Formats: sequence, C-alpha cells, structure tokens
Amino acid sequence: MKNISILGSTGSIGKQALDVVRYNREKFKVVALSANKSIDMLADQIEEFRPELVSIGDEKSASQLQKIVNQRGIKGVDIASGQKGLNAVAAIESAQVVLTAVVGIAGLIPTIEAINKGKDIALSNKETMVTAGNVINKLAKEKGSSIIPVDSEHSAIFQCLNGEDMKSIKRLILTASGGPFRGRNREDLVHVKKEAALKHPNWSMGQKISIDSATLMNKGLEVIEAKWLFDVDMEKIDVVVHPQSIIHSMVEFEDSSIIAQMGNPDMRIPIQYAFSYPQRLKSNFESLDFTKISSLTFEKPDKDTFPCLELAYDSLRSGGTHPAVLNGANEVLVEEYLNGRIGFYDIPKYVQMAMDCHNPVSNPGVEDILEADRWVRDYIHNELAGIPL
Amino acid sequence: MKNISILGSTGSIGKQALDVVRYNREKFKVVALSANKSIDMLADQIEEFRPELVSIGDEKSASQLQKIVNQRGIKGVDIASGQKGLNAVAAIESAQVVLTAVVGIAGLIPTIEAINKGKDIALSNKETMVTAGNVINKLAKEKGSSIIPVDSEHSAIFQCLNGEDMKSIKRLILTASGGPFRGRNREDLVHVKKEAALKHPNWSMGQKISIDSATLMNKGLEVIEAKWLFDVDMEKIDVVVHPQSIIHSMVEFEDSSIIAQMGNPDMRIPIQYAFSYPQRLKSNFESLDFTKISSLTFEKPDKDTFPCLELAYDSLRSGGTHPAVLNGANEVLVEEYLNGRIGFYDIPKYVQMAMDCHNPVSNPGVEDILEADRWVRDYIHNELAGIPL
Repeated sequence: MKNISILGSTGSIGKQALDVVRYNREKFKVVALSANKSIDMLADQIEEFRPELVSIGDEKSASQLQKIVNQRGIKGVDIASGQKGLNAVAAIESAQVVLTAVVGIAGLIPTIEAINKGKDIALSNKETMVTAGNVINKLAKEKGSSIIPVDSEHSAIFQCLNGEDMKSIKRLILTASGGPFRGRNREDLVHVKKEAALKHPNWSMGQKISIDSATLMNKGLEVIEAKWLFDVDMEKIDVVVHPQSIIHSMVEFEDSSIIAQMGNPDMRIPIQYAFSYPQRLKSNFESLDFTKISSLTFEKPDKDTFPCLELAYDSLRSGGTHPAVLNGANEVLVEEYLNGRIGFYDIPKYVQMAMDCHNPVSNPGVEDILEADRWVRDYIHNELAGIPL
Repeated sequence: MKNISILGSTGSIGKQALDVVRYNREKFKVVALSANKSIDMLADQIEEFRPELVSIGDEKSASQLQKIVNQRGIKGVDIASGQKGLNAVAAIESAQVVLTAVVGIAGLIPTIEAINKGKDIALSNKETMVTAGNVINKLAKEKGSSIIPVDSEHSAIFQCLNGEDMKSIKRLILTASGGPFRGRNREDLVHVKKEAALKHPNWSMGQKISIDSATLMNKGLEVIEAKWLFDVDMEKIDVVVHPQSIIHSMVEFEDSSIIAQMGNPDMRIPIQYAFSYPQRLKSNFESLDFTKISSLTFEKPDKDTFPCLELAYDSLRSGGTHPAVLNGANEVLVEEYLNGRIGFYDIPKYVQMAMDCHNPVSNPGVEDILEADRWVRDYIHNELAGIPL
C-alpha cells in the first residue's frame, strides 16, 4: 500500500489521480488533499477517500468546508488553509508519494517541503522544474527523493529511458499536438479569442495549460522541464509536432535507435505509472486500437506563428533566473488573455520584453527565483497598467 | 573488445554485420567466418578481417579458397568445410558472441554447438527458435548464454523490454510491412512470379526471406520466434501491418502503455545492438527524420489473401514438432517456387497438407525435430514428384 498526498485534487489532474486511486484501492491510499476554491468538490472527495488532512485556499473556505464535513458526520479529517495548509499537505508524515497537481509557481514551495521530508514526487506542476530545476535536483539527490514526471511527454521519456544508460541519449524528442491553432498563421490569430484557444483537439485540460498549448508555450515549458528532469543539454531536445497525440514522446539513442511511448491520450496512464513506479499495474484503461488509427503524422513546429516555443529555448540560453521570468510573465499574461484584456500575440510580446529587461541571477537559490517571479509580475502589471479591463 | 564469430558472413545480414565491425574496430574483432558458396567474397573478407578460422560449404570450395588465400599471402587462417567446419566456427574458443546468419534449419546444430560452449548468440537464424525454441531456451539457461535477437522486430521488442518486468506484458505487437503484395487479393496473386515477390518495399534482404515476406510466412515464423524468445503465450502476440516499416515492433504493458522501437529500416542498428548489448554504441547510422515521414499507418493483416500467417499460429496451437514441419515444408516450397515449379498459393496449400498429415512428437528433443524436418521434406518432395520442373 502506498500512501498518497495530492496537491490540487479538484483540478483536472487531481480528479484523474483520484480515479486511479478509485480503481486501485488495494494499492493506493489517499492521506491528504488540497484545493484552492472548490469547496463542494473537496467535501465529496473527503467523504469518498477519507484523508487525514485537507487544505483549502483561505480560512473562510476552510470554515465553510468544516461545516459541510460536520453536517455529513465525517470524522478524523483535519482542515487547514492557505500556504501553511498546502505545505502541511505536502509534508504530511504518512505519505510516501506527493502528487503536485497545482498550477503555476504556487507549486514550488510545497514541492520543496515534500522533498525535504524525503517523499517521492509525482510531478505534475511543471513550473517547479522550469523555474527551479537545478535547486530541486540538488535537494532531491540530497534527500533521496525520486522525481517521477506525470506530464504525458515526460512520463513517456521517463518510460523510454527505463533500463537505459543516460549517457547514450542522442536526443529527446518531445511531441506536440500543435494545439488548436496548428496550421493557422499570425494574421488568423491576432484577434483570436479565448473560446477558440480553449478547445484543445486531443486532451481535456485546465484553462491555463490549454492557452499554453495554443501558444506552444506549454511545449517550451516542457523543453525546460525535460532539460532538468533528464539532465540533458537543450541542444539535445527536439520538438516534433504530431497532431494525433498517440506517440507521447521519444528518445533517440546514440546508435540511432528510437524508443517511443504510445497510447490513447488518457492522463490516468502516466498518473498511475508515477504512483506505481517502478512497477506497472494492471488497468482498465482502453488499449490503443491500431486498426482505428488512420495515420500518425509529423511536422516541424511553426516557430513564426508560435514564437513562445523559441522564447523558452532563449530563456535556457540566457539561463539563471530567465526561465523563472519567462514562466512568471506567461502566468500573468495568460490570466490577462483569459480576462480578455490582451490579445494572443501580446503573450509572446510581453514575455520577450520582460526577458529583455530582466537582470538575471545566475545559479539562483529559491529566494532569487521567487524574487524574479515577483519582479516580473510587477513588471507585467506595470506594462499593462494603461490597458483597460 | 568483443570477439565475434559470424555464421553466414556472405549473406545480407553477414555483410551488414561486417560493416558494423568495420566502423567499430576498437570494440569488435572477427575471429571466425563461414559461408556456403561465395568463395571470392569470403576470400576478400578474410583479407580484410583476418579471422583465425573460416569454413565453406564443401571440400572442393575449401581447397579453391586455400589457393586464393595462399596467392594473396594471407597467413594465420585455418580453412575448414562442411557441417564440421560450420560447427567449429560456431564453437571457436576465442569468440564471445556468435552471429547465426545462416538461412534455414541449417542454423540449428551450430547454434546448439555455440550455446554448449556458453557463447552469447546474436540470433538472426529464426528457424532455430521456430523449430526448437523450447530446447534452445533450456540449454541457454543451463549454459548461461544470452540469446539476443537480430531480426528487426525481435530486436525492437527486446529493446522495448529493457528494464521492464516480463510479467507486466499485456501483448507483443509485431509490425509487418505487409510485403510487396499488400492490398492485393487472391485472384491477383494466383499466378504471381518470383520477380514480383522478390521486390520488398522497405528492406533489402535475401531471396528466401523475401518470398516469406510476400506470403507473410515470415511474420508467422516471427510470431513463433517471439513466443519462445520472450516466453509469452501466442494469444498475447498480435501482428499489425505497418507499411512504412518505421516502427519495428512494440510491447503493450498491463497499464495500457505501449513502448515502441523505431528507426530507419537499417539492419545494422539491430546487429550492432546485439553485438554491443547491454550497451549502446555511437554510430553513424542515419537518424530518423520525422519531417520526412509523410505518415505512419496501420492495418489488420489480410489473413484470407495471406493464409501462411494463420498457419503459423495453427502450428503453435498443435505444438510439438508442428512448427518444425511448418518451417521445413515452407523451406522446400519456397525453393520450388523460386525454381518456378509451383505457384504462390501452393506454398500455403502444401504446408497445410503437411501439417495435417504430420504425426507430431510433443516436447521434442533435437533429434525429433530433425526427424520431423526430414520427414516433411520427403513428404513435400513426394507430393511434388508429379510436377515437372
């Protein structure tokens, strides 16, 4: 039995993770959950999974949640809130594995808390590695924590590297669906609204990641994440657009042999793998039916229409706190795009401006990273100050 | 430095194996070679690779070869011939790895000789496992030999299983190009001549395997080989037609995750892997260029037009010496088809007849297998006796 703590249990990944637990009750037990705002859903999850501890965004939500829990006569669950509560869920004594499924840089500190307690991390929060990969790798090594990726692409690469020598990697090949705007050009997209951007062709995902997928920033962040997760130079990380999302990513080795991981686009497969690793568990997930695949195709990413991908490589080239700035700027800008305040191409425009203005710290610690994040959020808010909502 | 002995060095696989050695002189040394008839080519190989021992088909060829070697002033090579010579090449003291690249059941005895000496086998001769998988597995275990497949499909599966638990295999998925007659029907093929059958779309191969590829018997033999190599029930082995031959085969695990091995259709990749295993070596083999792949497609095999595939499954269902009978009948029939003596559909027809008439030995030893092979060759020759050449 593995005890699991889930940060972000009411989001898309969190819910699918609970589905994995639901079908593997004899293997996994949920000991802690956290959510930001979804009180009712979290109450239902408490009732079904009976964790020891839950945390919710603020004190007001916590007392509302406590009322519901009392009404339903549920005993034995502690209810916490805020950053302190989130950290407590991450560091809970009884968990062996912590799934970090919160969105954004908010995932960084609780992930560090969990690693400090020697827990294995089922890493879904990519911002942790994007902003602080070097710090996390060092700490995980020191504390004996394994970082097991949950992102379908990184889980694919992780699986492809099973039993292989990391030194024989020639290149990592991240596949990208190309998002909802694949094949479109800049003119088409200048005035594109969030409703169109949110329609991902293959995956059902949260809003932030859906917009990142439309701009290809998501793939850029994944390139940075891959660099740190697999300790590979950025020159050895390629992106190939593969619209069908059947091949989830690949590794080419020095002998020109390529190992790929494939399957239906079902996030429960990588989530379960992260929980069960190094074992694989029998599942009822649908097998890929090759006779139903019409064809698998591949294209170069269109870097002109989707400049965010190259901006991510640029941030790695500049190094230091630059990836944190790229990520922080993007978080604010996606929110403002979802608010309808800025246009689609304002995202790369202001990310670029922020990176150009940033005075980077090389070899940054956690405080430097958080400071760069604060700086870039202020910077973007100031730049957008003149634009009405 | 690994010392390598090559059985069948003048055939397609043998020549490509020598090419692998040519580019890895500091890693591999050729200590013995064998060929059946190609005296001149073998002489050139002796001059280039300087083995200790070579063997050729018969005594007459051996003395011709000895003359050429003397003329060229090459010293230090012993020249043998016949079955005894072939066995000596397989069992040579100085080799760690023996590549079995002879065609047909002729590969069985020398492979056993090599395993008896505890050598690792780079297995290209599929008939060894098809006819005597059970015997070979037992012997290899006893003698501590590794059997490393060279066939692109089995090498792919072997690579996909790296670091994985064999118990978590859900199914092996062998890919098949579909051969030169994919998409055709029985009517088209009744009178088809060997010239058309020999034109394989993706791979450059010997004549026997090219015809087997056209009938899909090759894939059937591979199913049997996979059963023994990976110790998997035949129900867990699927065949998917994948005309582009880019994905060389796959493994689906119990969690519905599929690992695939891909690359350009270049046999030097699996040959080098078999030589270098468990390491991978840097190579100059061309990397797969995804932007040049138009699309990867998949189809069900057409069992009606290509009945040989199902005959192979049938032989496994019947078990015992039946796979040996399937294989022996097919060897004779392909030869007769290449001679122009029988038609394309006479191959499955007479294979089926032989299997129906065969009185199988269950749990056969080597002698039973060789006896079944002799029986079926006589049987087929008798059946064809009335057909003029």
